[in-house]
Amino acid sequence: MSSAIPSAIDFYFDFSSPYGYFASTRIESLARDLGREARWHPILLGPMFKASGTAPLVQIPTKGAYAVHDMQRTADLHDIPYRLPDPFPIATVATARLMLHLTAQDPELAKAYARQALRAYYVDNTPIGDADRALDIAAALGVDRHQAARAIASDAIKQQLRQANEEAMRRGVFGSPFVFVDDEPFWGFDRFDTIRLWAARKASA
Amino acid sequence: MSSAIPSAIDFYFDFSSPYGYFASTRIESLARDLGREARWHPILLGPMFKASGTAPLVQIPTKGAYAVHDMQRTADLHDIPYRLPDPFPIATVATARLMLHLTAQDPELAKAYARQALRAYYVDNTPIGDADRALDIAAALGVDRHQAARAIASDAIKQQLRQANEEAMRRGVFGSPFVFVDDEPFWGFDRFDTIRLWAARKASA
Repeated sequence: MSSAIPSAIDFYFDFSSPYGYFASTRIESLARDLGREARWHPILLGPMFKASGTAPLVQIPTKGAYAVHDMQRTADLHDIPYRLPDPFPIATVATARLMLHLTAQDPELAKAYARQALRAYYVDNTPIGDADRALDIAAALGVDRHQAARAIASDAIKQQLRQANEEAMRRGVFGSPFVFVDDEPFWGFDRFDTIRLWAARKASA
Repeated sequence: MSSAIPSAIDFYFDFSSPYGYFASTRIESLARDLGREARWHPILLGPMFKASGTAPLVQIPTKGAYAVHDMQRTADLHDIPYRLPDPFPIATVATARLMLHLTAQDPELAKAYARQALRAYYVDNTPIGDADRALDIAAALGVDRHQAARAIASDAIKQQLRQANEEAMRRGVFGSPFVFVDDEPFWGFDRFDTIRLWAARKASA
């Protein structure tokens, strides 16, 4: 083992993924337990599902109905405020672009924005896919609304998100949430205990 | 709450599902912790995947490679002897028919057969999809090989397995392992801790 500072863990999520929302409420405490920072990466599942030949979870026969039930049960068992939003799923490209824009300025501000946006969608049923609603949430955190609006409409940010999503796919991300610890991949909120177990085994190896 | 004896938990698995195998090594202790019996039900994922419009996990791009990695990691972290068999997946219709045949005679014998067959496939790479290999395993447990061979070739057992699989699908089973506790559905080996948490919350409610 080197004595270098352990690298940050990478947390990928789609704003339209309930399990990604659940993970967002626990990723910082997981990172602290591992003695690491967490980097948050908004992704778009659409292109990933297209590459895998799959569909949004809740649209799959039988499995979709189970997933809707499991999401609520998971939230309840972990005491996470949640109800399935309507409409669901939504396009989250504007929300994700705004997060990228904020991350470049201040990663902690971007996380605060993401937490507010996820809470707005999964607790208050706010349609955060709408760029105006996403900008409202950022403005409430002190972000310059006009500058942010210009940024998320720019070609630069569109290309940046497309490239970030492609990079995530090349790394092996195909769902939300997805976590890497030292390049070890973990898919799903239900893998958070596994991450702790894996890290403990690795530390004692 | 009624004072009736709690009903058995239902455990559905495909012999060609590594996560089903992992679950088979823990389902009896889970049932004991819940103060219940476990009923084991062999299923065939093929017709279920067809109904869901999905493919065998390891054949899905990107997700398949992750699954292969996650299976070995899951086995290692839970100290379950395992290596991905070759060939994988296999057709398990003969193996499942034999288990149905044995269950009608003696459910505990059928579980012993299932455990041996799963271990033969996932530890010793024995091709248990082959009826002769499946019969070898049953014979080693004292089962009349000729009678069992006749039974699994009969129209009666073929129809019984088809009907059992359709009944499981009507109940909502779409993957392996799948567990019902009082009609509450749980999909995946990674839901075993959730089952304990759910049962504890229900008992204290």
